[in-house]
Amino acid sequence: MHEMQVTVRFCETDALGHVNNTSYFIYLEEARVKYFETLGYSMDVKKWSFILASAACDFLSQGYFNQALTVKTWVSRIGRKSFKLTHEIVCTHTGDLIAKGSAIIVYFDFGKQESAVIPDLLREGLNQSIRET
Amino acid sequence: MHEMQVTVRFCETDALGHVNNTSYFIYLEEARVKYFETLGYSMDVKKWSFILASAACDFLSQGYFNQALTVKTWVSRIGRKSFKLTHEIVCTHTGDLIAKGSAIIVYFDFGKQESAVIPDLLREGLNQSIRET
Amino acid sequence: MHEMQVTVRFCETDALGHVNNTSYFIYLEEARVKYFETLGYSMDVKKWSFILASAACDFLSQGYFNQALTVKTWVSRIGRKSFKLTHEIVCTHTGDLIAKGSAIIVYFDFGKQESAVIPDLLREGLNQSIRET
Amino acid sequence: MHEMQVTVRFCETDALGHVNNTSYFIYLEEARVKYFETLGYSMDVKKWSFILASAACDFLSQGYFNQALTVKTWVSRIGRKSFKLTHEIVCTHTGDLIAKGSAIIVYFDFGKQESAVIPDLLREGLNQSIRET
Repeated sequence: MHEMQVTVRFCETDALGHVNNTSYFIYLEEARVKYFETLGYSMDVKKWSFILASAACDFLSQGYFNQALTVKTWVSRIGRKSFKLTHEIVCTHTGDLIAKGSAIIVYFDFGKQESAVIPDLLREGLNQSIRET
Repeated sequence: MHEMQVTVRFCETDALGHVNNTSYFIYLEEARVKYFETLGYSMDVKKWSFILASAACDFLSQGYFNQALTVKTWVSRIGRKSFKLTHEIVCTHTGDLIAKGSAIIVYFDFGKQESAVIPDLLREGLNQSIRET
Repeated sequence: MHEMQVTVRFCETDALGHVNNTSYFIYLEEARVKYFETLGYSMDVKKWSFILASAACDFLSQGYFNQALTVKTWVSRIGRKSFKLTHEIVCTHTGDLIAKGSAIIVYFDFGKQESAVIPDLLREGLNQSIRET
Repeated sequence: MHEMQVTVRFCETDALGHVNNTSYFIYLEEARVKYFETLGYSMDVKKWSFILASAACDFLSQGYFNQALTVKTWVSRIGRKSFKLTHEIVCTHTGDLIAKGSAIIVYFDFGKQESAVIPDLLREGLNQSIRET
């Protein structure tokens, strides 16, 4: 499982005194990028290989300014041309679950402008962090 | 059905040249706020009545800088203490579907700090824009 | 003088209960874009002609969620290759001054990748909204 | 001098392929928070002691997605009730200067809702990272 640390920025909170819902999607995007890097994908815009087809997040408890969060990411499904990531965002100190997220990612050939079959090397990499949920 | 207009800001795009996925959640939050206002809920932080339990968005085609978008919002399910909103984000000019979103909202008594049964008046309001999907 | 209306989004506030400082720069960017459009510049990324060299904002009183704001923009200086915009952000209803901003913009030839002399047509346009401050 | 590391998130870029101007103000806010923590100020919203009166940034060269940036912060002026911070944002790897920022911060008594004389302990702390520019 991939883990990433993030500390809540002040501008990511809102007037209810907690982390704004839109900020969690910022953390999930960052977690995907960091996870893709571990798979050997250079995060160069000119060599982009992934399209985000869907993102979702359940907000289970509140996050707060300056809180250290751990974003856990794993692969929960691998299809022919797409795969699904599942995330948990927990308080780094207490381990309390704050949010559960997911994303469906399509492997994409930007040259041809169409989705493509996941290449074997990527499939192997994804398989290493698969965990059904 | 509730409709809201929004024009994509430059800072809401990303280096892939399109609207960043996190920006759609900004639009969906704004649509919820505007919809709640039509139900007679003053969007005053001290009188807040709603908790966002879940948000999701499917990204169907790309949005671009300065594009005029229409965010359509309707009620797709009403429970005892929560309800679900469904959204479509379309290009205002062509009507092309860009994204489909949803949100689960819990009616919350901030004084007691617990979820509460949806009051009749709110239920009536929600019923007026129900459309199953 | 150019005027633009904006309503504060919830995610643009922060845990101090007011508009976060970074959000004002979002409004100022939007005001520049809208002003450039009035000068006949299509805001197409492929035909971009302007580089932001500097941005500044003085925060004079607090803004709040859902507040209607008016962003006033005028030209305060025109140089050979650059010009300065000055902004006031006021509460639309009371007229109270909330923030004062400014931006220095360089006219840029993206083909040659260098700053360029402001063309006459643009200079005329800028001159129409000049107001020294 | 205080130093902070930040890596550019994808959502902080824009359709021109570089870091959006508004994102630099996010980094500067984070740098202020981290610097205040080194002065012993707990960044608790209920004990907040600082008001941002002004923020500015000169954009000297472009930043890019995934770039490691170092934000340097020092005190450039100390007044009776306010002080000025100056920042440099450089590429962590090359040291190239990307942006120069500044902020004027007012010491504020939130109980009395008025600006207050900078207490001696804070003044001593600020003095330790003063560097005129």
